[in-house]
Amino acid sequence: MLIKNNDIWFSEYYAEDDVKLSLKISEILHTEQTPFQKLQIFRNDTFGVFMVLDGYTQVTEKDEFIYHDMICHPAFCVNPDIKKVLIIGGGDGGTVREVSRYKTVEKIDMVEIDEAVVRACQKYLPLTSSVLDKEPRLNLIFDDGLKFVKEAPEGAYDLILVDSTDPAGPGEGLFTVGFYEDCYRVLSDKGILINQHEGAFYDSDVEEMKKAHVKIKKTFPIAKVFGYTLPTYASGYWYFGFASKSLDPVADMKPEVWKQFGLKTKYYNIDLHKGAFALPNYVQDILDSVSI
Amino acid sequence: MLIKNNDIWFSEYYAEDDVKLSLKISEILHTEQTPFQKLQIFRNDTFGVFMVLDGYTQVTEKDEFIYHDMICHPAFCVNPDIKKVLIIGGGDGGTVREVSRYKTVEKIDMVEIDEAVVRACQKYLPLTSSVLDKEPRLNLIFDDGLKFVKEAPEGAYDLILVDSTDPAGPGEGLFTVGFYEDCYRVLSDKGILINQHEGAFYDSDVEEMKKAHVKIKKTFPIAKVFGYTLPTYASGYWYFGFASKSLDPVADMKPEVWKQFGLKTKYYNIDLHKGAFALPNYVQDILDSVSI
Repeated sequence: MLIKNNDIWFSEYYAEDDVKLSLKISEILHTEQTPFQKLQIFRNDTFGVFMVLDGYTQVTEKDEFIYHDMICHPAFCVNPDIKKVLIIGGGDGGTVREVSRYKTVEKIDMVEIDEAVVRACQKYLPLTSSVLDKEPRLNLIFDDGLKFVKEAPEGAYDLILVDSTDPAGPGEGLFTVGFYEDCYRVLSDKGILINQHEGAFYDSDVEEMKKAHVKIKKTFPIAKVFGYTLPTYASGYWYFGFASKSLDPVADMKPEVWKQFGLKTKYYNIDLHKGAFALPNYVQDILDSVSI
Repeated sequence: MLIKNNDIWFSEYYAEDDVKLSLKISEILHTEQTPFQKLQIFRNDTFGVFMVLDGYTQVTEKDEFIYHDMICHPAFCVNPDIKKVLIIGGGDGGTVREVSRYKTVEKIDMVEIDEAVVRACQKYLPLTSSVLDKEPRLNLIFDDGLKFVKEAPEGAYDLILVDSTDPAGPGEGLFTVGFYEDCYRVLSDKGILINQHEGAFYDSDVEEMKKAHVKIKKTFPIAKVFGYTLPTYASGYWYFGFASKSLDPVADMKPEVWKQFGLKTKYYNIDLHKGAFALPNYVQDILDSVSI
């Protein structure tokens, strides 16, 4: 539905609901109540097509390159030998798109709980989703990621990317000690887990960050956090967790090897990788306050 | 005026006015048309007291520590011998507050064009402004910064901090080659100039960044850019310029000397300093596209 002369805005509320970011809607492309969540796809003239799940913006055409660069490339710079990748969630396809740029990757298992998300993105977000139809190394599985990891064999993956929604909603189980313990088990010796770590600015986000971090710190010997700009997430700056069995995300970087992949990236680079792990003092204090 | 059961929002529009960040107003503290600009001070429950000039949020109690850490401390880490400081603008006082923490600084000249800003901040924003009443090294001058720098003697300052509004409005002259040439002249041999460099995400901000950068690059042999998170500025991530006659902002850092100052900072630290200069590829491309 194309809207003319409209004044329809989509708003996402932050903090105590007294701060909001709003995008003017030029087109309502899709609305659906799936078995798991409320799915909406809109167009905004500045951000392009964007997908909203349960009221939270997940992906926009304009800023998705930042998110997908940062969920994917740091892990490959630390371990350029990654061959088997598991993606949990990631229904828009952007994470598969970036992972599939590594010709050395042999297998990509993507486990998305909500098929409706994939189908809607295939229709409206080809920028991220078109890879899903044409990548021969991809196994696209519609299932519960929590259950999938529980049943996966030991040491089956070199990299797990948790490209999920926030802890509230269908993604909730992906922020539990049980899930992290299963991830640990199914990762190889040099295995890396990347997951959502929320924001650090608003008090409500800080609580979620602490919850995510304390559990992952209990499970993995190395558990660090890195940041990236994302204009459509609360406060404009958001974090991923980097957890691993043996590799440090900065000390064990292999920049010269990574450069040989010859990938052109719009956001990620080697210096930025190091910089992303250099947290502001107040964020480091939040992480340090979490005792295990 | 305290507002109850209100639904009054202050909105700042970004991009093509189809994106906006809104703060719910719990109290309208001050509104005034000064000789230079429209000045408003509001309270929001999450951000605390915040000041708006000509419709643009300048400072909030909740996130000012980030801005003021980043406008001040990187320069002192590169040249810990800074003794004479000129601040252009900075009416809220936060920049003076951070500079005055260096006991080695002998003189702080602050040239603010709009006395009304200082007076309003003294009343409503003591968090940043209380230093203005009690700092003996401070000369607070109400004058046009452009004219002040033109008339200042050669080599008079080790550091110039341009804590101004955006290129539109009273700050416009502070983004001209003439101004930068005057800054160059009044800076000492190890002199550093820090100035606003706008955002890099929305097309409209990119144009401003280019305009700021091309002129400063013409004037200073070293002209770099560094970023910082700021939730109330467009896209949540914003940039300062670091220009100098001889010192590189990263290669010439003196972290061990800086640490001896013993300053506790909520945002800034040595690793973050380096990381802030590690720009995303798309931002570096914008800067590289500027030819001089």
